[in-house]
Amino acid sequence: MQHFSIGTIAAWDRFYRGNFMNSLSGFKSASLIGTIDQDKHLNLAIFSNIVHLGADPALIGFINRPLAAAPHTIENIHSTGEYTINLITANMVRAAHQTSAKYEKSVSEFDAVGLTPVFEEGIIAPFVAESPVKYALKYEQTIPIERNGTFLVIGSVQHVYVDEQLIETDGFLSLADADIITSLGLDGYYKTSFLERLPYAKAK
Amino acid sequence: MQHFSIGTIAAWDRFYRGNFMNSLSGFKSASLIGTIDQDKHLNLAIFSNIVHLGADPALIGFINRPLAAAPHTIENIHSTGEYTINLITANMVRAAHQTSAKYEKSVSEFDAVGLTPVFEEGIIAPFVAESPVKYALKYEQTIPIERNGTFLVIGSVQHVYVDEQLIETDGFLSLADADIITSLGLDGYYKTSFLERLPYAKAK
Repeated sequence: MQHFSIGTIAAWDRFYRGNFMNSLSGFKSASLIGTIDQDKHLNLAIFSNIVHLGADPALIGFINRPLAAAPHTIENIHSTGEYTINLITANMVRAAHQTSAKYEKSVSEFDAVGLTPVFEEGIIAPFVAESPVKYALKYEQTIPIERNGTFLVIGSVQHVYVDEQLIETDGFLSLADADIITSLGLDGYYKTSFLERLPYAKAK
Repeated sequence: MQHFSIGTIAAWDRFYRGNFMNSLSGFKSASLIGTIDQDKHLNLAIFSNIVHLGADPALIGFINRPLAAAPHTIENIHSTGEYTINLITANMVRAAHQTSAKYEKSVSEFDAVGLTPVFEEGIIAPFVAESPVKYALKYEQTIPIERNGTFLVIGSVQHVYVDEQLIETDGFLSLADADIITSLGLDGYYKTSFLERLPYAKAK
């Protein structure tokens, strides 16, 4: 077991440190966030730090990097109040990763990477047709994280679209059956295989 | 593809809704948080919503449920200013899940579930000996999420202990090689297998 103090880590080359620190927190739920701007330009971007905040009300948050690094998605969410989150299958990984390139605001990443926008009645933000699990959110709140200029963006789930074969009898979604990936670090993608579900734990 | 509006979801039985909504946001990095209180009682608890906030400074956050549901870890962090986060291997899953039972504050979950506390010089919070990837944090900030009474607890990484075989030449940690699991929903655990790492994306 090797030990690294933060002094050692802070002195590393930034790419090495970035790879290390981004892997350290473990597997993540990389997902595609779909938005639209006031001029009807579509935007699609991969975000890996998505957190479940609560089931009732149904709140989900994501971490947005500092504005200079990632301006378009958050700007569109603030201006329209709506966005979609679309889970990523193994077949979609390369296209999804490519959305992390810096495209001009007027460029639709759907076109640029080869994914298909799809619209649902009453929702102006685009979904990703290829995704088997996706949901639309109403923007609720942005909490600035002053320590490093990032943001926790919170939305409430409004509509869910899911391949019905994934829904188990108790409401659990068996995402592995649809080849939904998990991500690691800045650029690693992994398939998953079911290990077990465990009963509600009680003190013995 | 099945559609559910939030009106439908809100009317579901709470266990069904809990399973569904907790799976919807995708795979998570369930990890064990180790703390100690002022009377030297050890605490160990599984938390699934861990987020990478930034690599420099090295900040990691986790979501703590409302205080009535999960009081001990956050109380210890506030009183000592220190905690550890320990990743979970497939062999540790049952013990790790069992820490979610409601034990009295004076009970050490290490003893109750059969994991081994280990201490490192200068760090009062306990690590989990069985974990091949673990890190100590200094408490930085608690951000209340008023919408549902949860908290984003932010810490800065101070020390990292990692099985050196997992560190790739560019700093990436190949966690799957140590059988680190990912979690889904409230009670699902999955193994991962490497799919690919992709180069830094550029607009074409």
